Amino acid sequence: MSQRSRKTRKVAPRIGLIGLGAFGRLIAAHLGGRFALLGYDPQVQAPIKGVIAATLAEAAACDVVILAAPVPALREICREIRPCLRAGALVLDVGSVKVLPAQIMREELPDHVDIVGTHPMFGPQSARGGVKGLKIVLCPIRGHWTRPLAGWLRQTFQLDAIIATPEQHDREAAMVQGLTHLIAKVLVEMEPLPRSMTTVSFDLLMRAVDMVRHDAPEVFYAIERMNPFVPDVRRKFFGLAADLAEHLEHNGESQSSR
Amino acid sequence: MSQRSRKTRKVAPRIGLIGLGAFGRLIAAHLGGRFALLGYDPQVQAPIKGVIAATLAEAAACDVVILAAPVPALREICREIRPCLRAGALVLDVGSVKVLPAQIMREELPDHVDIVGTHPMFGPQSARGGVKGLKIVLCPIRGHWTRPLAGWLRQTFQLDAIIATPEQHDREAAMVQGLTHLIAKVLVEMEPLPRSMTTVSFDLLMRAVDMVRHDAPEVFYAIERMNPFVPDVRRKFFGLAADLAEHLEHNGESQSSR
Repeated sequence: MSQRSRKTRKVAPRIGLIGLGAFGRLIAAHLGGRFALLGYDPQVQAPIKGVIAATLAEAAACDVVILAAPVPALREICREIRPCLRAGALVLDVGSVKVLPAQIMREELPDHVDIVGTHPMFGPQSARGGVKGLKIVLCPIRGHWTRPLAGWLRQTFQLDAIIATPEQHDREAAMVQGLTHLIAKVLVEMEPLPRSMTTVSFDLLMRAVDMVRHDAPEVFYAIERMNPFVPDVRRKFFGLAADLAEHLEHNGESQSSR
Repeated sequence: MSQRSRKTRKVAPRIGLIGLGAFGRLIAAHLGGRFALLGYDPQVQAPIKGVIAATLAEAAACDVVILAAPVPALREICREIRPCLRAGALVLDVGSVKVLPAQIMREELPDHVDIVGTHPMFGPQSARGGVKGLKIVLCPIRGHWTRPLAGWLRQTFQLDAIIATPEQHDREAAMVQGLTHLIAKVLVEMEPLPRSMTTVSFDLLMRAVDMVRHDAPEVFYAIERMNPFVPDVRRKFFGLAADLAEHLEHNGESQSSR
């Protein structure tokens, strides 16, 4: 394998993939054929297509290291890989929030690595038909890799790569993901939902729900608990919902007189 | 006009359209070219393409009479048109609820007319690209016109015509429309909503909202107040939302430990 790695290194960087859950596998499906992809996940034993099974130290010693682990595990992983990281390596995370991972990676990773925070705004459900046109947010954290990486993602996968600060990202994501997941959680609790006499807008709503309902629980909790802007969005949504409920229960009879 | 009417009557039935609001105009756009369409609306003065301006009595004396008025106005209109209705005429409504209009029409319309309740489950927004494949629910109320009408709508407009009782309709619609409109109302209150760093599921959610946000207030109030099954659906939705809000505020920290 060391021969193959050396050979590949001349053509393209070796990529270490730490975490082989649902999103790690999606990365493997898209990068596995293009790069030597060294994957590590203590909870995954079976071989995964496109992934060369590796130890944590081997994966962390690659030219590019992708941390595809749940946000709550990020600090511990950064501490574990710290001694193995090569000078000049690029470290990326793929978490659904960006302020907290940026802070953790800045604090825990050595100065000799570059860091870009990423949030691919899609998952196994929404990327079923391919990733073309889907969005990925890139946050510059350390070094100058953000723009070249955005260009490469646009050119190679036709991704819509958006560059933003972690705070800009989390403010928008608080609405985008916070609201989608809250609404989906409530609607799933209401099953069975109608599938026959439906409107076009209800069908769209159900497609939105179906896209996030199978997300790992970690994704929901990362969004709800680790995005500093979500509590305000959530309180506003539930406050407005309660106002509307109150209004419809006790008031507004006059509106039905026409 | 009487000559033209007689001539048209041999080929196709004359249709009376009472109510020329957003939905009445959508009907006119699809039926106006095929039939002599006699339209009446006390609040609409300007001529509408495909509609022959008529008095209430003229519109009510047609072979088919479509009541495209808000549900709260239905009983009064039925009383007004009652003396003008021809024996053997077919009367249809197009309201977003079906139990209440069925009851009103059964009570107020003379025995010598047939009645079918309809709910076209689309509006000017969702029918922008045509009505092909869209759904319409037909409820038999009096006479045997439901099946032939369903067949004609399928053949002529490729509509997905579903036959159901008013109660079956209202049970499903309580979820379908009750939930869509409640969610849309709350989200519209939260504007400005993100339009850049969005997920596929959020984009679907916004398309659902955009489809109903410009609906006439009467549609919202008909759904919320005149569907007997909506209060239970609404309480369940807001109850589950409140539970989730409570859980996320005070509990579930253990979930974020992984």
